[in-house]
Amino acid sequence: MLDAHKLLSESPDLIIGRIKFHSILEDAVAGAHLVQECVPEDLNMKIALFNELADLTSSNTVLASSTSTLMPSSFAHESSAPERIIVGHPGNPPYLLPVIEVVPHTETSREIIDLAVQTYRRAGLKPIMVNKEIEGFVFNRLQGAVLREAYCLVRDGVASVADIDEVMKSGLGRRWSFIGPFETSDLNTRGGIESHAAKMGAAYERMGAQRGQKDPWTPGLVKKITEERRSILPLEDWADRVKWRDEMLMKLLAVLDK
Amino acid sequence: MLDAHKLLSESPDLIIGRIKFHSILEDAVAGAHLVQECVPEDLNMKIALFNELADLTSSNTVLASSTSTLMPSSFAHESSAPERIIVGHPGNPPYLLPVIEVVPHTETSREIIDLAVQTYRRAGLKPIMVNKEIEGFVFNRLQGAVLREAYCLVRDGVASVADIDEVMKSGLGRRWSFIGPFETSDLNTRGGIESHAAKMGAAYERMGAQRGQKDPWTPGLVKKITEERRSILPLEDWADRVKWRDEMLMKLLAVLDK
Repeated sequence: MLDAHKLLSESPDLIIGRIKFHSILEDAVAGAHLVQECVPEDLNMKIALFNELADLTSSNTVLASSTSTLMPSSFAHESSAPERIIVGHPGNPPYLLPVIEVVPHTETSREIIDLAVQTYRRAGLKPIMVNKEIEGFVFNRLQGAVLREAYCLVRDGVASVADIDEVMKSGLGRRWSFIGPFETSDLNTRGGIESHAAKMGAAYERMGAQRGQKDPWTPGLVKKITEERRSILPLEDWADRVKWRDEMLMKLLAVLDK
Repeated sequence: MLDAHKLLSESPDLIIGRIKFHSILEDAVAGAHLVQECVPEDLNMKIALFNELADLTSSNTVLASSTSTLMPSSFAHESSAPERIIVGHPGNPPYLLPVIEVVPHTETSREIIDLAVQTYRRAGLKPIMVNKEIEGFVFNRLQGAVLREAYCLVRDGVASVADIDEVMKSGLGRRWSFIGPFETSDLNTRGGIESHAAKMGAAYERMGAQRGQKDPWTPGLVKKITEERRSILPLEDWADRVKWRDEMLMKLLAVLDK
């Protein structure tokens, strides 16, 4: 399939030729720079596996888990090599979404974190850092926020399941497929995300309050976010970036509205 | 620009030829099936304008506001034609996002709602129904949920602005550009959205509780959502739809990862 869509830089045969199957763990991980485990989401199974992996691999091999629900410390805890254990959480389907969330725990070494990020990047993935152990990491935190709101809107008779999905796919999701929520806000308002927060912050705070949330966008937080956005996109480049956004939406339209 | 991307079915000149500018309101709206106002978000200005429009148009002309912040009842209230007033809220940029949120108030007539939906659909838009007046409608409710969570994650040092944007654009947003949050969940779990809710509901509830939210996915609500999904996609078509999702992601990859 990937080949049919011209998404491979080599022939499928060449790639398949590099994949080896082993029924003995020791053989599978011999000489590995990074081991990515995908066993079921069972804590005891993970603990047992990581204990074995610590013994079978060298002191500079990254030991990564694909878990989306377990914190790395929970299975690194009893390992003899906690400093090499990390979570590398891919999106679903993993061979089509480039994102991978890199989640160290407090004992993971700096070298292992860097090696994991470099290895994923060389594999064509987009690694992002989750700096603290938090349920859902970033991916499922954002997804959960949308799902919870969507469930409320159906529950309260505001809109149908189909119409809520339509708002996403014919609206929000198109922008979010190439610019994230911060850049979207930054480009939506002249003056950037600082103006956006000044203009929309109170409304979003009221909507949050209706769902029990009380996390105000304080001046300090808005300043921090603004500074990071401005270091990525100076305001003098803002108009060009808006044009680029519109060009990207047009390219997407050609694919999505066929 | 649209022409350069082959997104027009007619020549630009032909389209421009159909657009007329008037400096007198009466001339502009004469004979209109639908009037779409885009004056600033000022309640008194809207009230004055809709009062004029009620007198200048016929009894079957839709009077639509582009507002994203005002409820239709707030300016329909003092109008002599409240039954013709509706909100038709487009996404930004409106000429590139097909979604339009149709928000009636309790006095809007059924005929006017139907006429607005038909007119928008004929114009190539994707109208969705917002059945109750609610701040943010559906679009900004979903957007706000993501932004509030994203701000919390930056505030708490979990991830950077750039990395949160990356999770969206290299992960969640790719799927959401052609399937909404409900369909995404439906396709993510074998057995569909009912299995997804059984498997993930508790985790999302815990994440919500950390933000003050207490909106449980009750069995009745999950049943309602499952029934609507199953009427759109019977489970026997599930595997084919997953394949289609993957095909769409590959088409997007070709555009997005250039």
